[in-house]
Amino acid sequence: MLASSQAGLDIPDYMDRIARRAVRASREIAHAGTEQKNRALAKVAQSIEKHRAVILRENNRDLAAARKSNLSSALLDRLELNPQRVDSMANGCRQVAELDDPVGEMTALVDRPSGLRIGKMRVPLGVIGIIYESRPNVTIDAAILCLKAGNAVILRGGTEAIHSNLAISRCLDEGLEQAGIHAACVQLIEVTDRAAVGELITMPEHVDIIVPRGGKSLIERISREATVPVIKHLEGLCHVYIDDDADLGKAAEVSYNAKARRYGICGAMETLLVAQSVAARFLPGLCARYAEKGIELRGCARTRELVPGLQVAGEDDWRTEYLDAILSIRIVDGIDQAIDHIETYGSHHTDAIVTENRAHQDRFIRKVDSSSVMVNASTQFADGFEYGLGAEIGISTNKLHVRGPVGLEGLTCQKYVVIGDGTIRA
Amino acid sequence: MLASSQAGLDIPDYMDRIARRAVRASREIAHAGTEQKNRALAKVAQSIEKHRAVILRENNRDLAAARKSNLSSALLDRLELNPQRVDSMANGCRQVAELDDPVGEMTALVDRPSGLRIGKMRVPLGVIGIIYESRPNVTIDAAILCLKAGNAVILRGGTEAIHSNLAISRCLDEGLEQAGIHAACVQLIEVTDRAAVGELITMPEHVDIIVPRGGKSLIERISREATVPVIKHLEGLCHVYIDDDADLGKAAEVSYNAKARRYGICGAMETLLVAQSVAARFLPGLCARYAEKGIELRGCARTRELVPGLQVAGEDDWRTEYLDAILSIRIVDGIDQAIDHIETYGSHHTDAIVTENRAHQDRFIRKVDSSSVMVNASTQFADGFEYGLGAEIGISTNKLHVRGPVGLEGLTCQKYVVIGDGTIRA
Repeated sequence: MLASSQAGLDIPDYMDRIARRAVRASREIAHAGTEQKNRALAKVAQSIEKHRAVILRENNRDLAAARKSNLSSALLDRLELNPQRVDSMANGCRQVAELDDPVGEMTALVDRPSGLRIGKMRVPLGVIGIIYESRPNVTIDAAILCLKAGNAVILRGGTEAIHSNLAISRCLDEGLEQAGIHAACVQLIEVTDRAAVGELITMPEHVDIIVPRGGKSLIERISREATVPVIKHLEGLCHVYIDDDADLGKAAEVSYNAKARRYGICGAMETLLVAQSVAARFLPGLCARYAEKGIELRGCARTRELVPGLQVAGEDDWRTEYLDAILSIRIVDGIDQAIDHIETYGSHHTDAIVTENRAHQDRFIRKVDSSSVMVNASTQFADGFEYGLGAEIGISTNKLHVRGPVGLEGLTCQKYVVIGDGTIRA
Repeated sequence: MLASSQAGLDIPDYMDRIARRAVRASREIAHAGTEQKNRALAKVAQSIEKHRAVILRENNRDLAAARKSNLSSALLDRLELNPQRVDSMANGCRQVAELDDPVGEMTALVDRPSGLRIGKMRVPLGVIGIIYESRPNVTIDAAILCLKAGNAVILRGGTEAIHSNLAISRCLDEGLEQAGIHAACVQLIEVTDRAAVGELITMPEHVDIIVPRGGKSLIERISREATVPVIKHLEGLCHVYIDDDADLGKAAEVSYNAKARRYGICGAMETLLVAQSVAARFLPGLCARYAEKGIELRGCARTRELVPGLQVAGEDDWRTEYLDAILSIRIVDGIDQAIDHIETYGSHHTDAIVTENRAHQDRFIRKVDSSSVMVNASTQFADGFEYGLGAEIGISTNKLHVRGPVGLEGLTCQKYVVIGDGTIRA
């Protein structure tokens, strides 16, 4: 059901039917065994490989339309699939099959004086809505993570990728069916009408959680309008603080890597904080290295005294996630001012200290309220794969439920299991 | 600042100041040691005992005003303090001091191929807003749990209890100060204007979570209007299912206790489901016992054939949390119809099966999507103390973050701690 045939479609009714199918399917997939889920993942991988040509052809339709609408080259790049990208979708399925199944895990078992044995069982969340932008591979990545964690998923991709997504969605259907899993466990919203999103995020009676994947403006808009809980991945305004007691060799490596390895990821450093006592020895050399790489540097007054020719960094800079070859630098009196800066201007995503001083490490770890607090490590490590989660559906900047990189466990919850023997309460 | 002096007060400004103070205080209390927090709890207990007469006098002012406004006797009972109730507030402080401090606990430590050591540290949530109704003891109970978990708390009690709450709040201030903890860690909203609640629940930039404690209508209203996440404690429409393979002796004890021990608590059974194969042997005796206790019974058609003289139970009954001496009874074909009934009509709070059949136990545990699933035990056990949490701030019917009885851990979250040695990402 494509855009062309959507005229007159009753969107609330269409979404209600999708959501109800998802709820029914979620009860089924919640109890599918690990083997059956892994078989489905293997079958989806095969189906993607079998239909590679179709996927690429449909992707070409999207690309042609995108070029016609003069979409930006960055967006075209995100939209484009090629044989390698298709292969990596198939491989992704096999990798997720390898991951431990979190469902059914029992923890915190206690025997109570009442005679009850009480524990917590990990169970799927139920129905998950994923809202994403132009990358068609998210259709697979998100679907298979939700599936492995025992959830039904409703996918809403970008309008510009609709043909690619439909082709990929048919592979999901085929693979699931071959493994005996109801295809309604993974449903792609086939209408491109924006109203469908509005419905999806306001159905708390059917949908348990929304995971938006995309830019800050998408996530902010969805968070504002949603009545379903949202796992938010807002900005990463990350800091590295070089302490008085830093090993300046490590400090230079970490600072350079945190900014220069990749600019556009949420774990990239945006502001470098340097203790005043080491700044003169540390900053000139590092700044030369940044400049050589073509990184624009903006400094506070003290920094600009030490390193001539820098732009001025002001209030706005401390609050900006550049996601670009720009870095702001501030010299601070010491650890307390650094922590204060991070708590005032940061986004509570990922922040690092470089120091050999254990007391300073501990103080930084305890006082910096970020989803990841790092010691002597590059902020660019903020990533589910690097953390050993095996997969990642996003990095949560929420405090509740799940914080930091979100893997399979973040797509589940726990329930109490209480076992008695005819036990009654006095 | 009482109602009489509130005319012309700028509520948004007043609440903004309270919230900003709470945020600053939260950074302090987050790093207070266990000993200091426990000392504060002991000092609060002493202060309550010292000012018992003042608390009772101020409570009498509230009671007199409530009687004048013809408030119901149930509400007057909730509002009333007496020496025993005041003592139990002080004892509550000492009990919470005994509980393990969840803050700082490290789990899930892994060494990664990159050389990083990664773990999760349990940390306070930050600022917690508690909105409650007439019981003044909640002022203490809620404050001390938030405090022990390292959070700043903003308390909003019922207007009818304002003098009692102010007196109790002064004991909190005194105890905290004696332990060297900033009094802003526990703030009572001193204006009774309803607009203050509206502000509190729409400050996600300052307040991390709202815990409403009260009736369903309060919680629903707050959930609807809040932009801060809410730990909801909605209704407990609890079921007990008596399986074909039940030990009917245990079944009778559990069914009777689940309904008759207390009617008004969320863990009370509201609907009894009985497998058809055991109904004739089981129901007549049990129904006689319920009737003797004065419990009104409403049955499905099959139940009414077996037990003459029952009221008719209809669709509405299956959906009603009576919280009263009323029970609806349905005979089902077996476990699958029972599960289907629970999933269709239940509130996902607490549901039990009585059976000796292990396969049926497992199926019930896996398929019933409730915060507590019980086997051969009374649903009246749904309670943080019975579960060994040591304390309870409510029972969450959310799936996210915390589900079921909420103790100290539910008032915290986790952050990643990443330790390297100058480690950079390739």
